[in-house]
Amino acid sequence: MAKILRVNMTDRTTAYEDVPDKYKALGGRGLTSTVVYDEVAPTCHPLGPHNKLVFAPGITTGTNAPTSGRVSVGGKSPLTGGIKESNSGSVWPPLVARLGLKAIVVEGYPEDNGWWGLHITKDGAEFFAADEYAGKSLYEIFPDLFERFGEKVGIATIGVSGEQKMSMAGICFNDIDNRPSRYSGRGGLGAVLGSKHLKFIVVDGKDAPGVEIANKDLFNQGRKKMVNALRTHDITKPGGTLNSYGTAALVNVINEAGALPTRNFSDGRFEGAAKISGEAMAEYCETRGGVGTMGHPCHPGCIIQCSNVIPNPDGTEMVSVIEYETTWALGANCGIDDLDAIGKLTWLCNDLGLDTIEAGNTIAVAMEAGMAEFGDADKAIEMLEEIREGTPLGHILGQGTEFTAKAFGVTRVPTVKGQAMPAYEPRAIKGIGMTYAISTMGADHTSGYTIAPEILACGGDVDQFDTDKADLVRAFQHTTAFIDTSGHCLFIAFAILDIAEGFEGMVEECNGILGTEWTTDDVVRIGKEIMDRELAFNRAAGFTPADDRLPEFMTYEKLPPHDVVWDVPDTTLDAVFAD
Amino acid sequence: MAKILRVNMTDRTTAYEDVPDKYKALGGRGLTSTVVYDEVAPTCHPLGPHNKLVFAPGITTGTNAPTSGRVSVGGKSPLTGGIKESNSGSVWPPLVARLGLKAIVVEGYPEDNGWWGLHITKDGAEFFAADEYAGKSLYEIFPDLFERFGEKVGIATIGVSGEQKMSMAGICFNDIDNRPSRYSGRGGLGAVLGSKHLKFIVVDGKDAPGVEIANKDLFNQGRKKMVNALRTHDITKPGGTLNSYGTAALVNVINEAGALPTRNFSDGRFEGAAKISGEAMAEYCETRGGVGTMGHPCHPGCIIQCSNVIPNPDGTEMVSVIEYETTWALGANCGIDDLDAIGKLTWLCNDLGLDTIEAGNTIAVAMEAGMAEFGDADKAIEMLEEIREGTPLGHILGQGTEFTAKAFGVTRVPTVKGQAMPAYEPRAIKGIGMTYAISTMGADHTSGYTIAPEILACGGDVDQFDTDKADLVRAFQHTTAFIDTSGHCLFIAFAILDIAEGFEGMVEECNGILGTEWTTDDVVRIGKEIMDRELAFNRAAGFTPADDRLPEFMTYEKLPPHDVVWDVPDTTLDAVFAD
Repeated sequence: MAKILRVNMTDRTTAYEDVPDKYKALGGRGLTSTVVYDEVAPTCHPLGPHNKLVFAPGITTGTNAPTSGRVSVGGKSPLTGGIKESNSGSVWPPLVARLGLKAIVVEGYPEDNGWWGLHITKDGAEFFAADEYAGKSLYEIFPDLFERFGEKVGIATIGVSGEQKMSMAGICFNDIDNRPSRYSGRGGLGAVLGSKHLKFIVVDGKDAPGVEIANKDLFNQGRKKMVNALRTHDITKPGGTLNSYGTAALVNVINEAGALPTRNFSDGRFEGAAKISGEAMAEYCETRGGVGTMGHPCHPGCIIQCSNVIPNPDGTEMVSVIEYETTWALGANCGIDDLDAIGKLTWLCNDLGLDTIEAGNTIAVAMEAGMAEFGDADKAIEMLEEIREGTPLGHILGQGTEFTAKAFGVTRVPTVKGQAMPAYEPRAIKGIGMTYAISTMGADHTSGYTIAPEILACGGDVDQFDTDKADLVRAFQHTTAFIDTSGHCLFIAFAILDIAEGFEGMVEECNGILGTEWTTDDVVRIGKEIMDRELAFNRAAGFTPADDRLPEFMTYEKLPPHDVVWDVPDTTLDAVFAD
Repeated sequence: MAKILRVNMTDRTTAYEDVPDKYKALGGRGLTSTVVYDEVAPTCHPLGPHNKLVFAPGITTGTNAPTSGRVSVGGKSPLTGGIKESNSGSVWPPLVARLGLKAIVVEGYPEDNGWWGLHITKDGAEFFAADEYAGKSLYEIFPDLFERFGEKVGIATIGVSGEQKMSMAGICFNDIDNRPSRYSGRGGLGAVLGSKHLKFIVVDGKDAPGVEIANKDLFNQGRKKMVNALRTHDITKPGGTLNSYGTAALVNVINEAGALPTRNFSDGRFEGAAKISGEAMAEYCETRGGVGTMGHPCHPGCIIQCSNVIPNPDGTEMVSVIEYETTWALGANCGIDDLDAIGKLTWLCNDLGLDTIEAGNTIAVAMEAGMAEFGDADKAIEMLEEIREGTPLGHILGQGTEFTAKAFGVTRVPTVKGQAMPAYEPRAIKGIGMTYAISTMGADHTSGYTIAPEILACGGDVDQFDTDKADLVRAFQHTTAFIDTSGHCLFIAFAILDIAEGFEGMVEECNGILGTEWTTDDVVRIGKEIMDRELAFNRAAGFTPADDRLPEFMTYEKLPPHDVVWDVPDTTLDAVFAD
């Protein structure tokens, strides 16, 4: 029987608990958000003793369902002050699931300043002293860790930014080649782990019992439908868009749509877009050769394989992975059109434990404050090194975009609920702007990726400037909450929104594992139930419709090239979740 | 007929407007809060183009009503994100009132980076270029300004902190000796003026028409009652407590009550209290001689005269004024028991344009973060100099207590709605804690000074630890909103709470000036109407009951010497203004 592992940092004890009935049909985001809703006081200090950090693999994670190696990390966010679910694919989540753990709940608060790691095997969980690893480069310590615990373990960790309780700090996991490169980046959950002085959660899946499956035939039936959908759709199939060019295939597309935020959201087109695009990355891999790889998986068993390893000019490894969000945040949004510089910045984010979206937005705001010219990659690198050094400037930047803007009096601050915006200009794509505004997570494209129908003609085809998208936005967010619960990567959505059998497959996989009898109609219902808990948490934490707004400057500054402002009425936003 | 002066910083124009009927019976806080409620979008960026800054003398200001030289400054606070009224007594408010101005409304937003001043005389308002004064010490530029505009003008200004849009920046006014020493300090309104690039509002009262009085006999009748009350009460009378020892007479009293916040709110008693008390200041004045003066007025016509000029050992001027809040914030709360060091820190706050309460709390939090030992005055001085220099550390500290705590991961952060607490420990004095929690202003003792009945047996006599004070807290806040509207200093409350004739006198003064027919029963009604607008603004800005809470650490950390936690139920807090 699967268990919940409680990790108490007050007295450094662990306990395996039975899974309460009400949690049995949950996983991933559904489980983290419900535990946070049930156990965390919404008004608690996010870095104080009463916050908790919940790690939960999805329902299908640890099985051979395709593209299912995801974990949700949940807690009260030090960045937004609201509930947070930050989702990532890596080696780690399947190992946790196969060890029979539905969730790991980190709670309590240490009295001393020592750093600790937790080593989990099939035989139990043991703490180990981790002071020797604190304050160091993640790239530097990772080889030592794998030497110590074995090459096949999964590691969840934080970098120096998390140790310093910075709101830009994510939770880092190892990829299939044991790089510190996969991130539950958003919302500063690394700072929460830092506040609890837990530096590592190492999981060893050796001889693990695996995930219980109630109805293997049904599960396999669903799995095959999902595999077929992913292998068929142009975006997700082997050799398809994501596999060939990675997520950065979007750079040219979004730039063409006039919605690629440039130089701190002051333009919708970047003259250097092509140089930082997925096509440019593929060309690097082809012409530079060496270790360069497009179509690299972030976790075993992924069909899509949208990750990459970008080579240096000499074919050695520059960094893995440069995603669309990363090449945009550290590139176009900072006015930087040099992919090698973006690679260096990405490596630094990985090394320091930073969310690349928040990092890029923060550098851009610092540039707007006059600390560097837009496009000055050397200064951008210096800024990240300030975070490593823990200088006062590093402590400003490390707290993220809104904090940096406030420190220097910048009013063009592209955040919602304190979280910096991803790579889609809401003035030019209204549905994603609505999603940023009303998401429970702050500005977050993964809350409801309406870009699919708004730009990619996937799952529908709607005009990017149309503001009448309440139904679309609501449906996408509820469906997404279910997908984030299923353990699948959100990118399955491209396939299953267009291929009904794939959608059925997702539900059948879950039914097969859990023994439930959900229909496809239950997806939105279950997603809504999860989001309703998140909304209730946020309301109790003090969020109101006034927080469901885009930044004021977008309502009066026209965005080139379409010269559009943010014009979705507040009443439209407020109506989406009013039921 | 009195006018409202509109100052538009977009195109640098001014306009004198008739006072709308609905504003005619308002003044001070009643007028600023109503104009802000009527004209400022609650969700606007406080440093963006849509915030406004409203200056309004009180109803009696500019007349010979005693202790009435007050101005309210109102706007959306960059510190709290809510409505703000910050009140101050100086030379400036009576001059504005005598020029026939009910209010000065500063609005709009400049496109360039130049600094401007506004020079207001009976003949009108003219802008002057002020770039030459920017970036400089206020003590350095004040003599030049008075040489240029005349010794009898009033000056409202900001220091370098306001120019740099720091949330710790107050609005500075000249005292009767033309020092830059009287502050509408709280809530960062100096940053709002800085965002509009208005460095000075200079008012020249020469040949001003004066304040219109509808019924002089009635006004004089009220004025006499007020004078009698102030001259009779032990706290307010000449030679009384405030006149002899200043507000810092409270140091020993509050320390004895176990409620003097010490070393960042970690203790309720400070072993060095006596050395930083009003009695110690009086001894300095007596033994050091020279310019040392207790019983110094902050504005002409004050009977109480609770200000002071503190001498150096050689009798030259150290600083004016060290108030209770100041000697506590920069003293006990930082573990500093050296009055000369506190004097130097106070001088620096005046010179840089800082709120001393926010400054002291911020230094204490920085000390807790390990940037200095508690009690290290030299390091505290260095911190304030960082603000002057505009270093990254200065930009952290300049944004105040909560910001500094977040930058360095400190969770013992004594703020409500982002504003740092004054010099009364809420765990040990429950009514003032309730006031901090539910005030529209953030943590603010002047919202409802329940210390009077809780500690001083003035206006009642209640136990400091009793938590059943909803009625008391409500009545004090509503009454205070009226007093802040009347133009009187809040300290008249000591006298008029105990002496009914004084209370009548306040109402008769207002009726005499305005031609109204208010009774003493109208005081709470009018105060409530004003606060209801403030509450409505805050709700629309996104405040909820979750914001009406003391910091979480106070609910679980016991405060010595009484070993008390914050234990007023949330339901009690939420009921105070629920009607």
